[in-house]
Amino acid sequence: MASKADKPLRKVLAENLRRYRANRGLSQESLADEAGLHRTFIGAVERSERNISLDNIEKLARALKVSPYELLRPKADPLIVGPTSG
Amino acid sequence: MASKADKPLRKVLAENLRRYRANRGLSQESLADEAGLHRTFIGAVERSERNISLDNIEKLARALKVSPYELLRPKADPLIVGPTSG
Repeated sequence: MASKADKPLRKVLAENLRRYRANRGLSQESLADEAGLHRTFIGAVERSERNISLDNIEKLARALKVSPYELLRPKADPLIVGPTSG
Repeated sequence: MASKADKPLRKVLAENLRRYRANRGLSQESLADEAGLHRTFIGAVERSERNISLDNIEKLARALKVSPYELLRPKADPLIVGPTSG
């Protein structure tokens, strides 16, 4: 049924989480503490292994001080739409 | 512990889901079919009752033909600033 290729969103979240966490200079452990989650959970999300819930996305966003939707936004996504190639 | 007030993100998703679904002229049932989910699940998400998972957010976004992050973006968030028509 669902392969990993069907779930690019996990990868987007994983990359954003790693990036925002690094930007704030937080370890997985300190982010976990901040968000009220477990360190191994953070690691698993950053490896695209966990099907995280909306409530936990919200906790992570709050701890990282970003809007939750930023965590799901592909880095290259052209928010202000212009001409696309291909 | 966590009250409803702690979870504004559920409400954002619920509103967006209802709006995008209406824009596409889909019933809860037809969206459910399209996304491979259950009609009652769609209803529960639209009432902010369910702590939906990332994979299911992805399924809904695919069925609605929007980027997943759009489903979490507050309507008033001034990402693309410009005149809006109702």
